[in-house]
Amino acid sequence: MRLQVPGYELLTQASNLQYSFSGTGVNVASAMTKLGHNGYLITKLPDNPLGDAAMSFLQRLGIERNFIVRDGKYIGMYFLENGFGQRASRVTYTNRLESTFNTADISDYDLASIAATTDVIHFCGISLAMTDKVRANMKAIAEKVKENGGIVCFDCNYRPSLWDGDYEKAKPHYEDMFSLADIVMMNEKDAMYILGMETEKLERKEQLQELIPQVAEKYNIQTIAGTHRNINEGNAHSLEGYMYKKDSFVFSKRITFSVYDRIGAGDAYTSGILHGELSGYEPDKTVEFAAAAGMLACTVSGDTPMSTEAEILAAVSGAKEDVKR
Amino acid sequence: MRLQVPGYELLTQASNLQYSFSGTGVNVASAMTKLGHNGYLITKLPDNPLGDAAMSFLQRLGIERNFIVRDGKYIGMYFLENGFGQRASRVTYTNRLESTFNTADISDYDLASIAATTDVIHFCGISLAMTDKVRANMKAIAEKVKENGGIVCFDCNYRPSLWDGDYEKAKPHYEDMFSLADIVMMNEKDAMYILGMETEKLERKEQLQELIPQVAEKYNIQTIAGTHRNINEGNAHSLEGYMYKKDSFVFSKRITFSVYDRIGAGDAYTSGILHGELSGYEPDKTVEFAAAAGMLACTVSGDTPMSTEAEILAAVSGAKEDVKR
Amino acid sequence: MRLQVPGYELLTQASNLQYSFSGTGVNVASAMTKLGHNGYLITKLPDNPLGDAAMSFLQRLGIERNFIVRDGKYIGMYFLENGFGQRASRVTYTNRLESTFNTADISDYDLASIAATTDVIHFCGISLAMTDKVRANMKAIAEKVKENGGIVCFDCNYRPSLWDGDYEKAKPHYEDMFSLADIVMMNEKDAMYILGMETEKLERKEQLQELIPQVAEKYNIQTIAGTHRNINEGNAHSLEGYMYKKDSFVFSKRITFSVYDRIGAGDAYTSGILHGELSGYEPDKTVEFAAAAGMLACTVSGDTPMSTEAEILAAVSGAKEDVKR
Amino acid sequence: MRLQVPGYELLTQASNLQYSFSGTGVNVASAMTKLGHNGYLITKLPDNPLGDAAMSFLQRLGIERNFIVRDGKYIGMYFLENGFGQRASRVTYTNRLESTFNTADISDYDLASIAATTDVIHFCGISLAMTDKVRANMKAIAEKVKENGGIVCFDCNYRPSLWDGDYEKAKPHYEDMFSLADIVMMNEKDAMYILGMETEKLERKEQLQELIPQVAEKYNIQTIAGTHRNINEGNAHSLEGYMYKKDSFVFSKRITFSVYDRIGAGDAYTSGILHGELSGYEPDKTVEFAAAAGMLACTVSGDTPMSTEAEILAAVSGAKEDVKR
Amino acid sequence: MRLQVPGYELLTQASNLQYSFSGTGVNVASAMTKLGHNGYLITKLPDNPLGDAAMSFLQRLGIERNFIVRDGKYIGMYFLENGFGQRASRVTYTNRLESTFNTADISDYDLASIAATTDVIHFCGISLAMTDKVRANMKAIAEKVKENGGIVCFDCNYRPSLWDGDYEKAKPHYEDMFSLADIVMMNEKDAMYILGMETEKLERKEQLQELIPQVAEKYNIQTIAGTHRNINEGNAHSLEGYMYKKDSFVFSKRITFSVYDRIGAGDAYTSGILHGELSGYEPDKTVEFAAAAGMLACTVSGDTPMSTEAEILAAVSGAKEDVKR
Amino acid sequence: MRLQVPGYELLTQASNLQYSFSGTGVNVASAMTKLGHNGYLITKLPDNPLGDAAMSFLQRLGIERNFIVRDGKYIGMYFLENGFGQRASRVTYTNRLESTFNTADISDYDLASIAATTDVIHFCGISLAMTDKVRANMKAIAEKVKENGGIVCFDCNYRPSLWDGDYEKAKPHYEDMFSLADIVMMNEKDAMYILGMETEKLERKEQLQELIPQVAEKYNIQTIAGTHRNINEGNAHSLEGYMYKKDSFVFSKRITFSVYDRIGAGDAYTSGILHGELSGYEPDKTVEFAAAAGMLACTVSGDTPMSTEAEILAAVSGAKEDVKR
Repeated sequence: MRLQVPGYELLTQASNLQYSFSGTGVNVASAMTKLGHNGYLITKLPDNPLGDAAMSFLQRLGIERNFIVRDGKYIGMYFLENGFGQRASRVTYTNRLESTFNTADISDYDLASIAATTDVIHFCGISLAMTDKVRANMKAIAEKVKENGGIVCFDCNYRPSLWDGDYEKAKPHYEDMFSLADIVMMNEKDAMYILGMETEKLERKEQLQELIPQVAEKYNIQTIAGTHRNINEGNAHSLEGYMYKKDSFVFSKRITFSVYDRIGAGDAYTSGILHGELSGYEPDKTVEFAAAAGMLACTVSGDTPMSTEAEILAAVSGAKEDVKR
Repeated sequence: MRLQVPGYELLTQASNLQYSFSGTGVNVASAMTKLGHNGYLITKLPDNPLGDAAMSFLQRLGIERNFIVRDGKYIGMYFLENGFGQRASRVTYTNRLESTFNTADISDYDLASIAATTDVIHFCGISLAMTDKVRANMKAIAEKVKENGGIVCFDCNYRPSLWDGDYEKAKPHYEDMFSLADIVMMNEKDAMYILGMETEKLERKEQLQELIPQVAEKYNIQTIAGTHRNINEGNAHSLEGYMYKKDSFVFSKRITFSVYDRIGAGDAYTSGILHGELSGYEPDKTVEFAAAAGMLACTVSGDTPMSTEAEILAAVSGAKEDVKR
Repeated sequence: MRLQVPGYELLTQASNLQYSFSGTGVNVASAMTKLGHNGYLITKLPDNPLGDAAMSFLQRLGIERNFIVRDGKYIGMYFLENGFGQRASRVTYTNRLESTFNTADISDYDLASIAATTDVIHFCGISLAMTDKVRANMKAIAEKVKENGGIVCFDCNYRPSLWDGDYEKAKPHYEDMFSLADIVMMNEKDAMYILGMETEKLERKEQLQELIPQVAEKYNIQTIAGTHRNINEGNAHSLEGYMYKKDSFVFSKRITFSVYDRIGAGDAYTSGILHGELSGYEPDKTVEFAAAAGMLACTVSGDTPMSTEAEILAAVSGAKEDVKR
Repeated sequence: MRLQVPGYELLTQASNLQYSFSGTGVNVASAMTKLGHNGYLITKLPDNPLGDAAMSFLQRLGIERNFIVRDGKYIGMYFLENGFGQRASRVTYTNRLESTFNTADISDYDLASIAATTDVIHFCGISLAMTDKVRANMKAIAEKVKENGGIVCFDCNYRPSLWDGDYEKAKPHYEDMFSLADIVMMNEKDAMYILGMETEKLERKEQLQELIPQVAEKYNIQTIAGTHRNINEGNAHSLEGYMYKKDSFVFSKRITFSVYDRIGAGDAYTSGILHGELSGYEPDKTVEFAAAAGMLACTVSGDTPMSTEAEILAAVSGAKEDVKR
Repeated sequence: MRLQVPGYELLTQASNLQYSFSGTGVNVASAMTKLGHNGYLITKLPDNPLGDAAMSFLQRLGIERNFIVRDGKYIGMYFLENGFGQRASRVTYTNRLESTFNTADISDYDLASIAATTDVIHFCGISLAMTDKVRANMKAIAEKVKENGGIVCFDCNYRPSLWDGDYEKAKPHYEDMFSLADIVMMNEKDAMYILGMETEKLERKEQLQELIPQVAEKYNIQTIAGTHRNINEGNAHSLEGYMYKKDSFVFSKRITFSVYDRIGAGDAYTSGILHGELSGYEPDKTVEFAAAAGMLACTVSGDTPMSTEAEILAAVSGAKEDVKR
Repeated sequence: MRLQVPGYELLTQASNLQYSFSGTGVNVASAMTKLGHNGYLITKLPDNPLGDAAMSFLQRLGIERNFIVRDGKYIGMYFLENGFGQRASRVTYTNRLESTFNTADISDYDLASIAATTDVIHFCGISLAMTDKVRANMKAIAEKVKENGGIVCFDCNYRPSLWDGDYEKAKPHYEDMFSLADIVMMNEKDAMYILGMETEKLERKEQLQELIPQVAEKYNIQTIAGTHRNINEGNAHSLEGYMYKKDSFVFSKRITFSVYDRIGAGDAYTSGILHGELSGYEPDKTVEFAAAAGMLACTVSGDTPMSTEAEILAAVSGAKEDVKR
């Protein structure tokens, strides 16, 4: 649950908050529904008005409620104050470790039904940082889905503060997930810092091209993808996506664009990769599509991508009107 | 009636709308009142709470209600979602063809009184695209005003989607209006696409300088004016105005400025031309005034220009303070 | 689509509107999901941003999207200004007859799938007043569901203005629906005015007790239910529900309560009757449950009932706390 | 200019204000436009953005701008905190005596044009309490209008705090206005306290019936009218109107109604009397009409009456619907 | 920290929240500052933006920051959905037991300085229900203040849910506080349920008159005070206050009034008693003053009383104006 | 009291205002509290709800109320319309000369107590422009504080319009303050225009380096500091601070940054200088600190700086995160 001060005020200045329910899982599942798939979320929400509000919010995004368990009392929350220019945004967490999600048992989830329904399942490195229970649940679900022929996708999303900056603690859990995954979202930094791989190259793209094939081979991963992003002057960002599959790299054009709300761009990119893979796009079409999905997510308010396949394909083709009438 | 989602949210994300009543006619009439003239609007509004709301809104802008007929049930509406960066704005229309305005009969309007009161009358190409009734009404009113010695101004405002992209269908109606008009707002593209004129020049300004004199001669138009606008990086626009009168061109300086709300800039430019002509300004003063009026309209929220003659003249002279105390 | 002026201002005074998507069908389907059933809506929505917004809104309420067809351009809309005391609320309609719903063809709907999924289907007299197409669609769907063993519920909801006050025009269509229905929501006025039945009784409850059994017999209806409501001083209402089934009447207690938002109370009552019937409640429990559902719907903002079975049962039992901590 | 804290918060609790421009003159002039007349306001507003805002606001209400002079710097302002129950509303004034209106000279107003245009002119006792300049202006305008055959209406509106509770100071100015007036809005308290008349009756209505004829005779006033209002439990008020004309009294029914915003009811009553007199209504129709106008003004937000003749006549006839569709 | 859904919407319907920082301690301390005293709060707030916001909020109310310790991470929070009529308000707590206040050590507070500054200190039964640490802190501070000659006030504020309904668990802690207290806020129910006293009287006031003297004697309490409140029809409440001191009872008039926001009335009553005692009012003036303070607190938005001594005394004297100008 | 139109609308377009209480004194005092000092304000506020609101607002900022006198009726107010791009912001003043502050007598302030409490006192050139009373008060307070060993700081803040552009009128008052001051905030323009000093240098920095030492010597000022600011393209500003102390200059780096709200940057710079001086920072650390404080103040909404010492030091060191988690 995100409790956000509207505009650019601080908590000490304002007197109201906007609330929403988001996160990588929500964003990817919701983006997939916009792209024409059925999106599910596997989670546990408290059986109280906060849980009800979360349910309504997820349903509004088109996410199916079949695999959302309702029980317990607490939901993870954080307060967000938007930064401006030299002043960074600030996040203040409440006590998340006792949330129903972080204390859920594997028996809370109906593994058989999840595995039977799932074509692709997506896991996120942020959840992996939570509790031993969450980690065990993730691996159990991934195994079950894989067993049933589903595709397992894992997004590294490494956040140092969640592991107290301790790469050693994170590494075995990441390796477990890499071993289970068919598709991994990452870049060269994850290879170097989490997996401890080394390279003598200095330029990011060269590092990427050396390390990613090693990762794919070592953990037997079918597809690896990710982005290089830069924050330019003003509020312009630039983004270049890549995908490594069948021993070869494809890169998207480097695109530069104005940013309204930067959160969710990575998740939109992920959903573009998954959509391309599921739709049998050629790799170069997939990365262009994913990059454009990431760009459009930055033009929409809220974390959650809202673009349809047609809108993303139009953006890829470069058509840009001032007003669509 | 414009129903606009506040900020940059989509209709699927928001839950409230701002409404206003605008359009080229409203903008020009209102701008003229700010410049010290009496502004009237000739239209028909439904005799219900939506029509009442429109009346209040127009009165607030200083527009006189004498020539606004009240009867019938529907008003044309559209929903507007603001775009951001690579994401275009979107307009969703309701069924406009049955609005009271689009179904009004010429007998609904008091031609004699309109003609007696009018010094300058302004028509817009968007109305011309509506229905046969509207087209007939426009021509009848233009003739009557002209007969009484009033000046007829016609703004091309060609929107391909309203004519299903069919220039052939539009051409005879445009030619009728050109023949009735003393002042026409247009540029070289209108000459080429609507009127079917040809030029071998490649550069826009050269095309303009070749074609506009031909238009003036062919349709016997006293004054032709318009702008060339560019959208630059960030939200900066640049604008250069021109006026062709008595066989010679004057051009404004090309001015560059930050844009808050781009809609209404063209209408402000038109009102500047009309004000210059009515006030006996020299042509070069008129174009600079009109260009500055267009620029200031981009710094104000809403479609409707809000600047006074003094404010526009100050902007022409280049005075710029940070805060007026 | 409801476009409502917030608070008690008029359209001429305000400048923004709240929008939502509601109606009897939405209210009943949504209420059923709160009571633990799966709720579907059979409708056709335009394939544009207004349709997208409607979809999101319905999904938020928990309604499944399986039977919602997307195509066409227009959605029915009305503007609502809240009344106060002696000043009545005002509704201003846009042109609804061309909405995608009102112009949908029976082939737009997947009858086989609808019939296979449906336990109970609910129709409303307001839809019946729309167009010949809508009426034909309603009857075709009702027949198909009935054929498959589903229960057909019909709510009279007679609105004189929609039939131009012409009971004769409405009667055959109502009779068709009555003949198809297993459950009918109505009271003695519907019997007298629409069906043309007569009674010499003067008191409402006596009229009801005389006429409803005749209706049940004539049209072979298993269950008939409805309410008598009164508006008291202040903003207090009182409500007494009834159900006629297997040749006998049961009545709820007459309950009196403060009203926050009166719209949707009837639909909540309907959902209570359907839930009682589906759950095998005894008739007297069903009417008390339905009456309490109607009461609670009046304490919630918006048209759509939000109460769970547990909350309604608590209200039936009379438990009332000031603050639930 | 009214600066009002929204809802029921105090200035120390809130952080924003709603602003509007109202007062007896505005309310009566605006109400007359809703009843089909042309409404003008004679005032002087500062030549700055506050004056511009006031102009826009008045125009929105349909008031003509012909007699509004623009010059100077200040506008009278007050802050309003709404009371609730036992907590009274609070008004905090800024320094009003230096407002452009209160310092205007008679030469600022175009008396000839005012007199030529005016059928009825309305003055208010609140203005009379302001400054010697204002008092002199009021009398000069009243004389000029009367000379030209216009009807002069004066509304006592005595506010003790504006005269420092000093009836002796007010009396001669009130007598001057009474001598000029054709129609006076007042009741028995004004006769007793301001004019110093005496009666031995104890009941208000008897006092009224004894004193008003004396006032009419002494100052040669054609029509005198006013109301007796009571504040009941809850937020219900009751109101009984009277009119004394040609030596006889008519009284309206005593009507009781819920109140949303009590300010402006007296001004609506006044507009009803003026409309009845101008329209040649019979006295009993006039008082019922005026009373209903007063009642409806209490159901609308803001000070300014918004009802049309048709709506008021419907209220007189007692028709009351829950929702007008 | 209170996170409140505005108006009467549910968490599932709304998208923003108003936040404030309140509680019995805040309310009493703030009310004392309005009555001309210096108000302090002894608490511990997290050293993060939420703590900063709480500090700003408390300072706005005039509370001194001297005894507010800043450290740690969490603040107690609850979500509030306003009820309406038959629908009760709902409170949803987050995990409060780990808040900085509930985990504070006695060494966090500067006892010497607190004791040196304090004339009267107020404790609340809600805090007493929290943790052993809090209970120990309360008693240690009370002892230290008492030692230094300060007056100790204790408000029972028994909330069954906080003690899991277990009176036996609460009793020894209440007895400890009673033994330390000079002034106790309570009524006969506290005596019966918490202290286990018995009476054969059936009527509340008789029970009170029998039991309170026993409590005063047993625990050697100088002054005991409290209220009997009733919720009437509509939103009217009635309240009767009492004070027992020097072996005799005084009762306020039973006052009935409309309620805007009921929370905080008891705290206002307490502040009235403390103010009367500190100001040397006669007991009967004190109870009337406290009762009027309680009434006025119900007319103001928010939990925190905002009335000054002059305003409360005016309310006692019964003066009621519609608008204070 | 600042009454600000939200966003970029004009007073004629909007209908509500945000209000706050600010000014150089408020900004500096509040900034000092954020930096760990106790901040006081010496002023006189009316004894009415507007004064109460001002008190609450100041307390929220952490300003102590000891030296704020409460009496009288009026508070200085201004209306602010935000400019955009080429359209300047507009300020409309109400009649400020009769505010309680501008009419306060020196006897209203408790000089002895002020002097005893004050380490540093800050005066502003805007107050100096008000009335003779204010000027006399400023000098009397400065003398008294100086006598008691406090540091006197004076910020030139020359605003031509407040002196009717008359430097001659201002000069003696500025010289009086310069003679009393230990620290002066100014730059070369103040030396040239107010003090009438001359230089043949053309470049600003050279002028500064020539004139400031002369000022320091002539008026015996210990420390002089100030900034050179530029407004760049977009909404980027750049700022270079200087401090002259003990015969030598130090300059900060020229920093460039995006601006959210430009008002208050100078006051933040002043607070940085005072904090550096009070904390015994080296001059070069002080100017960098002050410049960073000025920059951060531009990233926060409202006039009042909100940054802590730690946040400013982090900005000096150049650390910049996107989101602080």
